[in-house]
Amino acid sequence: MTETAVHTAFSQGELGQVLIDRLDEAARCSAPGPGVTRLFCSQAHHQVLPLISRWMEQAGLTPQLDAAGNLVGRCPKAQAGEKTFILGSHQDSVIEGGKYDGMLGVALPLLALEALKREGMTLPFGIEVVAFGDEEGVRFPTTLVGSKALAGSVTPDQFEAQDSEGTSLQDALIAFGCSPDDIPDIARDPANTLGFLEVHIEQGPVLEQRDHAVGIVTAITGIERHKVTLSGKAGHAGTTPMDMRHDALVGAAEMVLAIDSVLQRTDELVGVVGRLEVHPNAVNVIPAQVTFTVELRSPESATRQDGREAVTAALETVAKRRGLTINVENTYSAEAVACADWMMTALEQACIQVGQPAERLFSGAGHDGLAMQALTDIGMLFVRCKDGLSHHPDEAITAEDGESATRVVMAFLQQMGEP
Amino acid sequence: MTETAVHTAFSQGELGQVLIDRLDEAARCSAPGPGVTRLFCSQAHHQVLPLISRWMEQAGLTPQLDAAGNLVGRCPKAQAGEKTFILGSHQDSVIEGGKYDGMLGVALPLLALEALKREGMTLPFGIEVVAFGDEEGVRFPTTLVGSKALAGSVTPDQFEAQDSEGTSLQDALIAFGCSPDDIPDIARDPANTLGFLEVHIEQGPVLEQRDHAVGIVTAITGIERHKVTLSGKAGHAGTTPMDMRHDALVGAAEMVLAIDSVLQRTDELVGVVGRLEVHPNAVNVIPAQVTFTVELRSPESATRQDGREAVTAALETVAKRRGLTINVENTYSAEAVACADWMMTALEQACIQVGQPAERLFSGAGHDGLAMQALTDIGMLFVRCKDGLSHHPDEAITAEDGESATRVVMAFLQQMGEP
Repeated sequence: MTETAVHTAFSQGELGQVLIDRLDEAARCSAPGPGVTRLFCSQAHHQVLPLISRWMEQAGLTPQLDAAGNLVGRCPKAQAGEKTFILGSHQDSVIEGGKYDGMLGVALPLLALEALKREGMTLPFGIEVVAFGDEEGVRFPTTLVGSKALAGSVTPDQFEAQDSEGTSLQDALIAFGCSPDDIPDIARDPANTLGFLEVHIEQGPVLEQRDHAVGIVTAITGIERHKVTLSGKAGHAGTTPMDMRHDALVGAAEMVLAIDSVLQRTDELVGVVGRLEVHPNAVNVIPAQVTFTVELRSPESATRQDGREAVTAALETVAKRRGLTINVENTYSAEAVACADWMMTALEQACIQVGQPAERLFSGAGHDGLAMQALTDIGMLFVRCKDGLSHHPDEAITAEDGESATRVVMAFLQQMGEP
Repeated sequence: MTETAVHTAFSQGELGQVLIDRLDEAARCSAPGPGVTRLFCSQAHHQVLPLISRWMEQAGLTPQLDAAGNLVGRCPKAQAGEKTFILGSHQDSVIEGGKYDGMLGVALPLLALEALKREGMTLPFGIEVVAFGDEEGVRFPTTLVGSKALAGSVTPDQFEAQDSEGTSLQDALIAFGCSPDDIPDIARDPANTLGFLEVHIEQGPVLEQRDHAVGIVTAITGIERHKVTLSGKAGHAGTTPMDMRHDALVGAAEMVLAIDSVLQRTDELVGVVGRLEVHPNAVNVIPAQVTFTVELRSPESATRQDGREAVTAALETVAKRRGLTINVENTYSAEAVACADWMMTALEQACIQVGQPAERLFSGAGHDGLAMQALTDIGMLFVRCKDGLSHHPDEAITAEDGESATRVVMAFLQQMGEP
């Protein structure tokens, strides 16, 4: 600790470069291959822990690996049981992902805290920064175990989830040095928790289009997914006249366009037909059956419901007119989670204070906040990323944007500490 | 031969029933499983040879397995080198196919010849009936070897084709008791060949819709196939606003409808988008690439060309408007083969003579006539099949339609023999 005391405050430009350098260093903790592959409880995860621990110590926090595989850094006030504000994001990546998705939200608040410390600021509340073990859900068919553990909402069945090699999450945690039996003990007390702030790359092109470094998240969208099975009649494509066909693919094509048309109606609703499969899928056979998925996302439940009703009505109309049978099965639903008004307002003021535009946008992707909202108020700050790209080795942010976002978080924390 | 001499002529109704019974018996020569599976040079193929040979002998023909795996029955005039008319179809089936596709065109002309023989008719020209070994192209990635052998157009590379177990066509023929080296010797002399007539189930619903037992084929359609690769831009389906997407599947959907619209313009053009694949095909990722096939068929080359141009123009328009890149690769082309006018006219007269409607239709599927047309004039008679179904265990014709078609062939042959 005496070591950091001799550092002077970060100069303009230095902060962004340090952030980028740290994330480059973290990216080297990866399984071999392009980009970053750092799965939950993997060797790469093990490798990255000392690095994050060092950042934590430089920020004045004491690192500790918890029962759920989260690396948690706590300031003395947090250790002493004072009311605590939590920041953080996830350490894990998808397979061949990028350097910033997740890890930015670990490195950036730690750097912000270190910078505040160098400037001699002390915060009048406890601080925790968490590097959640697993948000991407790549290794195990379960996700948000770390944030759910803090929120006290982990269910026992999650520990039975197995990876592709048959290792259970329970066994993986034990092998990683964690004691999953103690997970109930790490649930935070809502009465003692001030809020949760996550910094994350946008993973979309909105900030780039606005030419803004950062954006304030209003909500994490609700998501619903449906599997549509459309059945027509197979037949020899050479011998069945066009007017005697019940071609499931022609019907599906009309449905894909109808869904797209519903989705174009409002900016508050997005969605996609991402999977589509044709049966029998032969060059000379009239498609007998098509299955496809429909995903709808909106920050507003009512908007998503209106969208679902419009989509369903359109699908039924097309099926009826074309003599196709249709089955729609809901396969997934998650309600939207709103960010706390006070946190959006505070982030806005912080943006204004450091000279950044303070516009809002919603998050179309899921984040740890989905689980943390059961514990406390949440807020999110998005950082512009190149071409809106994520989950890809070419994922990128600029040092300038990284610095701007770091300064927003510094201002946000300082402001929270004001009487 | 003296055995058949004591038979009386077939009575009304008997002919159809004998035909159905014979095809039921042939269907028992099959690999295990639903329907009929009788691949080229298989055990089932071996099993069916004595049965077809018996029918040939009852029709006054001498059976012989030729170098290409065809079972050929020849009358004495044909054996003596007189000008010869050829009838026949293929003995092979698809996997889990039906009783009639192919084998009807073997059993029916043999029954017609037997019936003529019992009625004391003799034809003033040679007759051959051929059970071609392979038309479906299921076992080997090559097809029409038997009819190409008669037409003298087999190419050496066809013998190198291997089945899924690595057996070459050459080796399979040798194991079947054939001598593929002698195939050049079995090419027929065009000057000595009067024509080729194939009877086949329609494999489509047109005759059923017309309520006609038979139809006279005008042409075997030309076929062209294209592989279309449509590239957009992948992206997170939750975080990319709808108006910033280049969704390859939405583009492909519009193209499928545009192609269907071109195909609806004329009865002389049919086609299908039979295969379609989405990449990366994930529920929450904007489709980056879609590949699909376009097949066009028409009995008229000019109509097919017009269709191709209209389809291509529509695809390019959609791709350009949606900011997608498109690549269209022609993967297959086969020109249409017209049936000979004299044979269509003769079949019409034969239909009228036996009290059957004599309407024409084109064949949307390929047949042995595609190869035989290089040797001689071709004609085809289609027989109505239930629900237009083929390549399926439920493939069916009625005894009544079988009898009608047999009597048309008898009248056709008698008429050919008239001075």
